[in-house]
Amino acid sequence: MSNIDVFLIVDILGTIAFAISGALAAIRKRMDFFGVLIIAFVTSVGGGTIRDLLIGDTPVTWIRSLTSSYVIFFSAMAAIIFRNKLKILRTSLFLFDTIGIGLFTIIGIEKGLMFHLHPFVCIALGTVSACFGGVLRDILCNEIPVIFRKEIYATACISGGIIFFILRHFSVNQDIIYLLTAGTVISIRLMAVIKSWSFPKIEMNTKK
Amino acid sequence: MSNIDVFLIVDILGTIAFAISGALAAIRKRMDFFGVLIIAFVTSVGGGTIRDLLIGDTPVTWIRSLTSSYVIFFSAMAAIIFRNKLKILRTSLFLFDTIGIGLFTIIGIEKGLMFHLHPFVCIALGTVSACFGGVLRDILCNEIPVIFRKEIYATACISGGIIFFILRHFSVNQDIIYLLTAGTVISIRLMAVIKSWSFPKIEMNTKK
Amino acid sequence: MSNIDVFLIVDILGTIAFAISGALAAIRKRMDFFGVLIIAFVTSVGGGTIRDLLIGDTPVTWIRSLTSSYVIFFSAMAAIIFRNKLKILRTSLFLFDTIGIGLFTIIGIEKGLMFHLHPFVCIALGTVSACFGGVLRDILCNEIPVIFRKEIYATACISGGIIFFILRHFSVNQDIIYLLTAGTVISIRLMAVIKSWSFPKIEMNTKK
Repeated sequence: MSNIDVFLIVDILGTIAFAISGALAAIRKRMDFFGVLIIAFVTSVGGGTIRDLLIGDTPVTWIRSLTSSYVIFFSAMAAIIFRNKLKILRTSLFLFDTIGIGLFTIIGIEKGLMFHLHPFVCIALGTVSACFGGVLRDILCNEIPVIFRKEIYATACISGGIIFFILRHFSVNQDIIYLLTAGTVISIRLMAVIKSWSFPKIEMNTKK
Repeated sequence: MSNIDVFLIVDILGTIAFAISGALAAIRKRMDFFGVLIIAFVTSVGGGTIRDLLIGDTPVTWIRSLTSSYVIFFSAMAAIIFRNKLKILRTSLFLFDTIGIGLFTIIGIEKGLMFHLHPFVCIALGTVSACFGGVLRDILCNEIPVIFRKEIYATACISGGIIFFILRHFSVNQDIIYLLTAGTVISIRLMAVIKSWSFPKIEMNTKK
Repeated sequence: MSNIDVFLIVDILGTIAFAISGALAAIRKRMDFFGVLIIAFVTSVGGGTIRDLLIGDTPVTWIRSLTSSYVIFFSAMAAIIFRNKLKILRTSLFLFDTIGIGLFTIIGIEKGLMFHLHPFVCIALGTVSACFGGVLRDILCNEIPVIFRKEIYATACISGGIIFFILRHFSVNQDIIYLLTAGTVISIRLMAVIKSWSFPKIEMNTKK
């Protein structure tokens, strides 16, 4: 398959994962049908929307193409219908979500490269693409964004981004770069959750 | 009156309603004078600003024209001066606010059509225009956005948008389209509040 | 020194102050290393980013130039390393932060003038530049944005902006305009905090 095909598949899988995660968060908050749809939508397209706004690539992607909207609608419907199978779904959801941030990190970095931006900025855009949908979801649900608490989303994305540019510097084959970047993001997050692993909090000795 | 005149009036009435609603929310949170002004401003222009950013129509409207700013300033002043008449004001405020979301839904949809966007995207932009000022107000006041709780704002706007495009498909006269679209939004929200009506929450059977 | 040199220095000092303030807020919330970096970044570039988006000046500044990113990285590292010296740091931090909003107010206003915008809009952009980084910091930390509570940030910025345009109307020398604008912002905020001074809350007589 060409890179563009790989991209489309990756993008759609990520979109599905985030839509389901948003829908489930909204269901837990006991929102109504449209509330669930909207949170699913914002979780899924939020990161890419902020990325597109920052680099000035407007109208943003989901306004130019309806693909995401259809994918999100059916994913949210599926989340609503199968919400009571959650115990079975939870593991696969977690895996999808984790694959999603791995893939959206790559898409954000590639978009930065497409606009000839500095690697540092590309990594920031990859992190924004992967994480800020979840940040918006948490803000709309009035919780401290999970990205900044236990699950080290951002840490995983930044690490993956660094791997991306190290491999790119040594002219590694692109498919391998993608594989190892997503692999890095996914394994850091998997290990973080499975081993209750987290980056050390920055502790203060003095009392305020 | 021409359509443009109708638009201007509708836009200004909506702006007034949202400015007052924002000012009252800020007064309830015991903010100071400028805090009240800023929340009134954000509530009023927030939805349209996000819509303009998403479609890349920048500088955003309130930067190009000062009309909104003047209207908001005087509305917020009025809200501050008459805040103790709130019992009397409350019904008319609720009506203004409800008319506001009806009218801003139309304005958002028309802006989408102006940019030749798909009906689905137009309805999303109408909903954004009508609802996200209130979302920003609630986020700045640190509450769960009311849109996602009881008052089915979004549901009303999306329903109105669907009516808009059904009528448009049958080439109905534009004034009638506007009237029925706003009417749909307004009646759904009125019924929702008067009858404590709301879309069914999506309940979960399993314990997490 | 030329105005551009003065600007760069002012900009960098403001960036440092906000980065440290963001980092300390994140440390207090017990975030991990990357969480601290991200909050420092958002606090520092948030206001300018929203300003640039509103006027359509994209890609936003920190994507075009890496200067801010380097400054923020080293400031956040310094905040982490010296966090236990906080008692000593607190006064200088407060001063830096206060100088920061004074300087960012000027930068926002000048950017508005560069785009030939109305004085009212320029003052709004100055306030956005100076205050909204802190608003984003507080939202991400799930607190009511401090701007709307005690510290009258916005009031200080708006007052400084009014002074700016009054002096400009009388063709006062630009250096003096800058000095008096920043001086106004800084003294209002200093007085507000030192004297526990605040604009009167808008009280309501009626019970809701």
